[in-house]
Amino acid sequence: MITTDILIIGAGPTGLFTVFEAGLLKLKCHLIDALPQAGGQCTELYPKKPIYDIPAYPEILAGDLTDKLLEQCKQFEPGFTLGERAETIEKQEDGSFIVTTNKGTEHKAPVVAIAGGLGSFEPRKPLLDNITDFEDKGVEYMIKEPEMYRNKNVVIAGGGDSALDWSIFLSDIAKSVTLIHRRNEFRGHLDSVEKVQELKNLGKINLITPAEITAINGNEKVESVEVTKKDESPILVKTDHFIPLFGLSPKLGPIANWGLEIEKNAIKVNNALDYQTNIPGIYAIGDVNTYPGKLKLILCGFHEATLMCQSAYQIINPGKRFVLKYTTVAGVNGFDGTRKEAPKAVVKAIN
Amino acid sequence: MITTDILIIGAGPTGLFTVFEAGLLKLKCHLIDALPQAGGQCTELYPKKPIYDIPAYPEILAGDLTDKLLEQCKQFEPGFTLGERAETIEKQEDGSFIVTTNKGTEHKAPVVAIAGGLGSFEPRKPLLDNITDFEDKGVEYMIKEPEMYRNKNVVIAGGGDSALDWSIFLSDIAKSVTLIHRRNEFRGHLDSVEKVQELKNLGKINLITPAEITAINGNEKVESVEVTKKDESPILVKTDHFIPLFGLSPKLGPIANWGLEIEKNAIKVNNALDYQTNIPGIYAIGDVNTYPGKLKLILCGFHEATLMCQSAYQIINPGKRFVLKYTTVAGVNGFDGTRKEAPKAVVKAIN
Repeated sequence: MITTDILIIGAGPTGLFTVFEAGLLKLKCHLIDALPQAGGQCTELYPKKPIYDIPAYPEILAGDLTDKLLEQCKQFEPGFTLGERAETIEKQEDGSFIVTTNKGTEHKAPVVAIAGGLGSFEPRKPLLDNITDFEDKGVEYMIKEPEMYRNKNVVIAGGGDSALDWSIFLSDIAKSVTLIHRRNEFRGHLDSVEKVQELKNLGKINLITPAEITAINGNEKVESVEVTKKDESPILVKTDHFIPLFGLSPKLGPIANWGLEIEKNAIKVNNALDYQTNIPGIYAIGDVNTYPGKLKLILCGFHEATLMCQSAYQIINPGKRFVLKYTTVAGVNGFDGTRKEAPKAVVKAIN
Repeated sequence: MITTDILIIGAGPTGLFTVFEAGLLKLKCHLIDALPQAGGQCTELYPKKPIYDIPAYPEILAGDLTDKLLEQCKQFEPGFTLGERAETIEKQEDGSFIVTTNKGTEHKAPVVAIAGGLGSFEPRKPLLDNITDFEDKGVEYMIKEPEMYRNKNVVIAGGGDSALDWSIFLSDIAKSVTLIHRRNEFRGHLDSVEKVQELKNLGKINLITPAEITAINGNEKVESVEVTKKDESPILVKTDHFIPLFGLSPKLGPIANWGLEIEKNAIKVNNALDYQTNIPGIYAIGDVNTYPGKLKLILCGFHEATLMCQSAYQIINPGKRFVLKYTTVAGVNGFDGTRKEAPKAVVKAIN
């Protein structure tokens, strides 16, 4: 059982900044995310795209934003449960909550902050009858640990940036990479498309287009896939892994059944006070919440996280008062023993 | 008469970010600030101090934060009335407001956003009977245009960073710089103290300590000041300018008389909706406002500014609906004809 002060569901920008603000109040955080890495949409959907409305960043790539937020909060040593989806929540007699993931990992905390963005990202799956039989037995919809593909035969399907980028990346690691797409045209960054062309010319990527995977074969695990080119008879490609990268679509998912007030696929909160939901001790911040005038902007999530932490402090330390201290004045004391502070002014005679 | 869409009172971080958010909604902004430059406290009080709680900046100097915000909003071409304090407000029959400064400059806008921070910064003045007679006639409490001191004799009084830094700066421009402080010890950045010591040794700064200015003399304008060292008889120092830099203290000032609901020296706003005050069309954002759970943090001002702009849009464009567009998707169209946008994905065949 993992225990913490604030359990954050969702490791996107809002979740990560919560770690920093909680840390200033000496509260520890643990984050759960269905994606295999922190950063939420920013990292998974558009890491190379610039964002122009992060305050004081005239332009920042979404991936860099995540890196900066991770750097800013790392001194407060957040814990992570990644690649698992928060599934159930149970209120304990002592007022705390136990949240269990789809893989059975249990987390206990007096405060839960749902920073779930548009929801947990669920992969779009190809329509193949027996595909679920092979999940985690050679079929993966997201790449969590690239090392598991070392010296393996890999078939990737898809026509977007994920399919292109992972084909490029794995071409260096895997024994063979076969890329299947139902059109000849790929849609992605020019760099990526050109790189795949180059690797194909070098024989490092086997490209089969326009084609589709029409069957998966194997006993215990994937042994081959059937590839059908348009107007041709199917061929069999031997492979250890089949990775369909057809995009992710966000779903509020199991959180929708936690007894929270939901409106238009978002969680209603009290924005006049602390972004708490109808269940005391559970907050919703960032894109996942709704209130009058709500804007789904990253900068709004930062503000909501900050006010939420003050309210959470009261639940965790009942009756105790925390006086706001400015980081410029008081510095920042990390849980890892580090300290950041402004250089002190000197008092010195001039003779 | 200066006219604009949103008249912003206060050119600190919140005011500057308002320009950007308003610009995304195609609204023009004009800012009034009592200080001679943009940036508010950040620039005036602690430009060289690091701030640690700006989201995605593990550390940023307050002066750099201002520079980034100015860069981010410059494409929306804000207007500035600097070095003037907003003094009076009058509601017009057409619903708009006219705001007049202490220097008589008039501004007209349908929406006023008070982003006044802790208030307008008023200089602490030395206790000299006739000092007000010489204001703008050789006595200045803030340095607005350093060029006016070229080849002049200047006396600066004070013992902090402002006195040190301006003595250093003006020693290159003025005919002579005399620095007076009532102690031998100065309080400031080590660099600055050491630099003043060096300039004193080179004869480029005349240092008189511990001493005080005990009188100002002159007819039309300042001609000399009387300097009294402890236990010594006064001496007369001929000078064109006397610049006491004894610090600034923020005062809500004339805004307190605008008929706004005030609580604990801050303006009450409706935080459950749009940060509007009790007077429709007047908003208060950033450190100047108050509501349940308010935190005086820069990041909160950014959020408040953003929601406020949406509400202001409705006042300025009644009945028109503005659909939120993400900068990553829609890009940013500057009023100066510039356009920022994410590089487009290509659709390209691989052969």
